[in-house]
Amino acid sequence: MTEPAPPPAVPSGAGARRGRPGHDQETVLRRAVELFNRQGYEGTSMGDLARELGLTKSAIYHHVPSKSHLLEQALDEALDGLTAVVETAVEAAPGRSAYDRLRDVVAGSVEVLVAHQPAVTLLLRVRGNSDVELEALRRRRWVDARLTDLVQEAVDEGSLRADVPPDLVSRLLFGMVNSLVEWYRPGGPVDAAVLSGAIATIAFDGLANHR
Amino acid sequence: MTEPAPPPAVPSGAGARRGRPGHDQETVLRRAVELFNRQGYEGTSMGDLARELGLTKSAIYHHVPSKSHLLEQALDEALDGLTAVVETAVEAAPGRSAYDRLRDVVAGSVEVLVAHQPAVTLLLRVRGNSDVELEALRRRRWVDARLTDLVQEAVDEGSLRADVPPDLVSRLLFGMVNSLVEWYRPGGPVDAAVLSGAIATIAFDGLANHR
Repeated sequence: MTEPAPPPAVPSGAGARRGRPGHDQETVLRRAVELFNRQGYEGTSMGDLARELGLTKSAIYHHVPSKSHLLEQALDEALDGLTAVVETAVEAAPGRSAYDRLRDVVAGSVEVLVAHQPAVTLLLRVRGNSDVELEALRRRRWVDARLTDLVQEAVDEGSLRADVPPDLVSRLLFGMVNSLVEWYRPGGPVDAAVLSGAIATIAFDGLANHR
Repeated sequence: MTEPAPPPAVPSGAGARRGRPGHDQETVLRRAVELFNRQGYEGTSMGDLARELGLTKSAIYHHVPSKSHLLEQALDEALDGLTAVVETAVEAAPGRSAYDRLRDVVAGSVEVLVAHQPAVTLLLRVRGNSDVELEALRRRRWVDARLTDLVQEAVDEGSLRADVPPDLVSRLLFGMVNSLVEWYRPGGPVDAAVLSGAIATIAFDGLANHR
């Protein structure tokens, strides 16, 4: 995927003054992702984003070339994080078991979801309605295929139960992980480490009390 | 919630002829839900729905009073199914353990998700942007609260592990269940019973091979 050249940075001097909205690229992206998640990407216009930022509809184009550019940046943010977690697990030292690497991926994915929750939420709702979305789906499928391979490896080494098909395990395990974007709020009552531990406990050890 | 009176049924006679689209309420609802899921509820206009059904923008109002009426019908369909599953489990014969009733709810929820997948998909994306959505969120919270109570009961009877907070167990367990709407397709390679069994195996017994 060819990355379009980043738009020129917005000088923060005059714009940072109260009453004269000045927005760096990061702020514009954050507010756009919030809006996309709240009212849907298709349901959000550049006019809506301009209003949200207190800009005129023409001024918004000084900050962002297009709506799809913002979508692409957000999806890449989520996918870069998840891809890195999977690549680290795949390339781990040969001595590390597939079982431990799978647990690493679960913990690492929870960290990415917690750190980049709005971007991951957006990614999980992508349906393939544009080239940007199709490319994101392609990258998601790459990640999913690596996860299924890792589950299969863990089955092969005898550490994971063999009576559920690996692709189903992968879908359901990461379905549980991904579901946290729906309710997890940073700074809320549940800590990321507690969350990660709870998911690993349920998925690997099970809820039944086998005392 | 006061149910609005159903709109008058569309006679299927003349409309059923080839080239003259005739649509019963059920067909209109199915196509609307598909559209809402594909391009977002906010991103779908009554004009889009009319086009999808081969009707003029004015003719569509002979079939449905409003877009929000369609949303309400779809959300009620999903919520009626899930509520019935939870009520059955709560009111089960006193001899049945909370653990078994929780497993019943998991299996019953999978059945509802498989049978009403588009409606449940729509429900899971509701953010509270209107009175209809707020009412759906209120009903979801009622279901979630009963699920958490049931998890707590199973912990109290000693059949469920006590080291993960019940509300977190409930969120993650049904997060895994709900995740299937993202990829499950009726008639695909995975059968609903296999799916239900896989979820119960992972969640209650765990993936680790404790031979």
